Amino acid sequence: MRAIQIVTTRLSSCLRPIRFELVSSSSSPRLLSNSRRLICTAAATKSNGGRSGSIVAPLVENEEVQKIDVNPPKGTRDFAPEDMRLRNWLFNHFKEVSRLFGYEEVDYPVLETEALFIRKAGEEIRDQLYCFEDRGNRRVALRPELTPSLARLVIQKGKSVSLPLKWFAIGQCWRYERMTRGRRREHYQWNMDIIGVPHVTAEAELISAIVTFFKRIGITASDVGFKVSSRKVLQELLRKYGVPENLFGRVCIIIDKIEKIPIDEIKKELGSTGISEDAIEQLLQVLSVKSLDDLEDVLGGAGEAIADLKQLFSLAEKFGYSEWIQFDASVVRGLAYYTGIVFEGFDRKGNLRAICGGGRYDRLLPTYGGDDIPACGFGFGDAVIVELLKEKNLLPELGQEVENIVCALEKDLQGAAGTVATALRSKGQTVDLVLESKPLKWVFKRAARINARRLILVGKTEWEDGSVSVKVLSTGEQFQVKLNDLE
Amino acid sequence: MRAIQIVTTRLSSCLRPIRFELVSSSSSPRLLSNSRRLICTAAATKSNGGRSGSIVAPLVENEEVQKIDVNPPKGTRDFAPEDMRLRNWLFNHFKEVSRLFGYEEVDYPVLETEALFIRKAGEEIRDQLYCFEDRGNRRVALRPELTPSLARLVIQKGKSVSLPLKWFAIGQCWRYERMTRGRRREHYQWNMDIIGVPHVTAEAELISAIVTFFKRIGITASDVGFKVSSRKVLQELLRKYGVPENLFGRVCIIIDKIEKIPIDEIKKELGSTGISEDAIEQLLQVLSVKSLDDLEDVLGGAGEAIADLKQLFSLAEKFGYSEWIQFDASVVRGLAYYTGIVFEGFDRKGNLRAICGGGRYDRLLPTYGGDDIPACGFGFGDAVIVELLKEKNLLPELGQEVENIVCALEKDLQGAAGTVATALRSKGQTVDLVLESKPLKWVFKRAARINARRLILVGKTEWEDGSVSVKVLSTGEQFQVKLNDLE
Repeated sequence: MRAIQIVTTRLSSCLRPIRFELVSSSSSPRLLSNSRRLICTAAATKSNGGRSGSIVAPLVENEEVQKIDVNPPKGTRDFAPEDMRLRNWLFNHFKEVSRLFGYEEVDYPVLETEALFIRKAGEEIRDQLYCFEDRGNRRVALRPELTPSLARLVIQKGKSVSLPLKWFAIGQCWRYERMTRGRRREHYQWNMDIIGVPHVTAEAELISAIVTFFKRIGITASDVGFKVSSRKVLQELLRKYGVPENLFGRVCIIIDKIEKIPIDEIKKELGSTGISEDAIEQLLQVLSVKSLDDLEDVLGGAGEAIADLKQLFSLAEKFGYSEWIQFDASVVRGLAYYTGIVFEGFDRKGNLRAICGGGRYDRLLPTYGGDDIPACGFGFGDAVIVELLKEKNLLPELGQEVENIVCALEKDLQGAAGTVATALRSKGQTVDLVLESKPLKWVFKRAARINARRLILVGKTEWEDGSVSVKVLSTGEQFQVKLNDLE
Repeated sequence: MRAIQIVTTRLSSCLRPIRFELVSSSSSPRLLSNSRRLICTAAATKSNGGRSGSIVAPLVENEEVQKIDVNPPKGTRDFAPEDMRLRNWLFNHFKEVSRLFGYEEVDYPVLETEALFIRKAGEEIRDQLYCFEDRGNRRVALRPELTPSLARLVIQKGKSVSLPLKWFAIGQCWRYERMTRGRRREHYQWNMDIIGVPHVTAEAELISAIVTFFKRIGITASDVGFKVSSRKVLQELLRKYGVPENLFGRVCIIIDKIEKIPIDEIKKELGSTGISEDAIEQLLQVLSVKSLDDLEDVLGGAGEAIADLKQLFSLAEKFGYSEWIQFDASVVRGLAYYTGIVFEGFDRKGNLRAICGGGRYDRLLPTYGGDDIPACGFGFGDAVIVELLKEKNLLPELGQEVENIVCALEKDLQGAAGTVATALRSKGQTVDLVLESKPLKWVFKRAARINARRLILVGKTEWEDGSVSVKVLSTGEQFQVKLNDLE
């Protein structure tokens, strides 16, 4: 179906007569085994050599034309300048907040060994693993998340690093979905992680960082909040009902789907793990609890779950973000490795998916064979937050900004214009240099588009005197300056 | 072979008795079809539940341990904080230079349709394509270069963009090599491109940008230079000998290998395209020409090759980088799509591979089915330049830099320390907050490691008064400040 679509696009956008042909078999059969459906090659019919005003010569008479699909692969994005400005704006806030909190930036390979991401708890993230076999017959995957790579690197560094580590990363992650629900196959994720701190102070600081980020971009506590719980709640419940502890991960994953699939389905899935009907009913009831006091009534006051949560809420007050967080027992998050506090950021209007999420994953390093080092962290995607900003009319207006546009008034002064551009750039001024002879009207239009502050014209008479004309575009003010005096 | 290596690594780094087992077949057979050789799963033998002083509880009694290879996949890199600081330093220079020149940042998907990269000229870049079949049976590839994606995006944008476009990108690129010669399978590349300018002024500006970059990082014209030529030299020669123009790309690719494989091999390959022995001899002779005057003797003064090159050298003088560039007919570059000026940056000691390279590719957009739009650009990798900086002892010393370290003197003041950290961060101060109770000696050590300027201690008596102790670490000076007065 996709193949047909592509060919249609190509046909409709054809600018000159072409003839289709399959790729010639002289090419490597390995490389082309599946590309037949994707490529259609067309050779331009012999033209009369007309140049249609362009100085670009058709270099090769019988040049092969290989029409391409101009869209990025399904589920992926191009970042044209306007998209990139937004991405940079967002990422700079991620980076600046991480810097304020003293976190160090890290990154990992985009392509990792598949084994790194394979866990058995039935996570969605694993079903959607974007995995391949490479040319060396190794199973590899485009990373679906950053945490396993972080764990790998921490284990590799071993005793050479001093704990705690506070790391952040902004990395591209992939998932392979067959269905499309407007979800992309690729997105960026901001992660902050603390390795080596067992106390809830760590989670409290992570949430504080996200709140700081929200505030910077104009999002308030009336727009978003954090639902917070602890997986220890479930753990203590399962213990109470004598459910084997090795079912813990699977149960969490099933419960995470509670808002996505019908409750009967959830019950069935839980039942299939061997948990008693009684326990299931009790479990589901506890998940609807929205206050710590009610939770304490169920679990009693002695367990770690209650203690952790109480401490977190107390710290939230001290950090100054009490009005942002609330207890919600239904939050468990969809990753198998969380062990303690879990949280997710949500929009209060309830229109969007979770904005971010995180928690404590004290057992991840040891399950990979590393030391028993406690850890927690969060992931914050670049998609939902942009939807929220749009909805709240908070997206920034980001235009191109170049201070100067430099233009030669005659063709043989283009070198001189280059001299002027070089001089300005060496003084730290940004310069768009006009590289062709263009009418002044064109230059003014371009100056407006790039929001130039000044237009610098290089004319024959002034240049013989070592001077240029400077026009301040906001005021129309114009004056002559010696190149050396130009700041 | 690799599988054995991994298992060995795992075995040798095992910390506790494990038993190996193959991955259970309950997992999706598709996902695991090839992972058997990569994964070894081990279940920890029952411990006595000892916590060895850690407060991290083993959550699951019979937890499965899946020892992982702690190294990133062959040919790829982790960026630990110290590596990331260097990467950011380098990329910031790339970005700052691009900004000075008024270029807009763009990016494209890392994973593109394989067809986008398939050309028939026999390029090395195609033989090393990191390609796969995805789960939807589509042929995809990790991009080996950024230019084809740029061409795709420009064609997609069509008339909606005003020419010329000046774009830059810093993107990760991949190649799949079976042999290892210390070359990685993944690297970052800084690209600057000008779309829509047919004149050599464009190439002149691109080289000026690279020179500006070199100067910023301390590299001089005595360290590196640019070899410049034009593919039109070859084109005019081939025409002279009546060689069919459709052989042009292939001949360029063969000639690009001239310093890598024996000359007899080159001759043989050229011969196999059908070029006469006479033409081959003449071709190879011209390639050794190192001055424009000598070239003019061979080609005559009328052709575009000589005119372009002369203009470029004249512009180089005006832009102020004459001493950086030299004519060298042997430079053709290894990409099939170049049509005019080609250039490469080289270290004058001759120890390293090309540092960067670029040129004019006026025919790329039309061969993809786009309009006849002239274009040129360069790629600048992140690997060779770092080798050069190392060699010249120019690598910057980049430590972590956090202004303040904030620490509670008692456990129940940790919330107060959070209040202090929040206050400082809201004033734009970077803060590393100590999240556990630690001895002061430990705190001082950490402060030194992160290059903190001040240590802020939150003690009971001062805090009751709303004050904290501030110690300026460089001088040892210590004083008390009200939190509100802390800047």
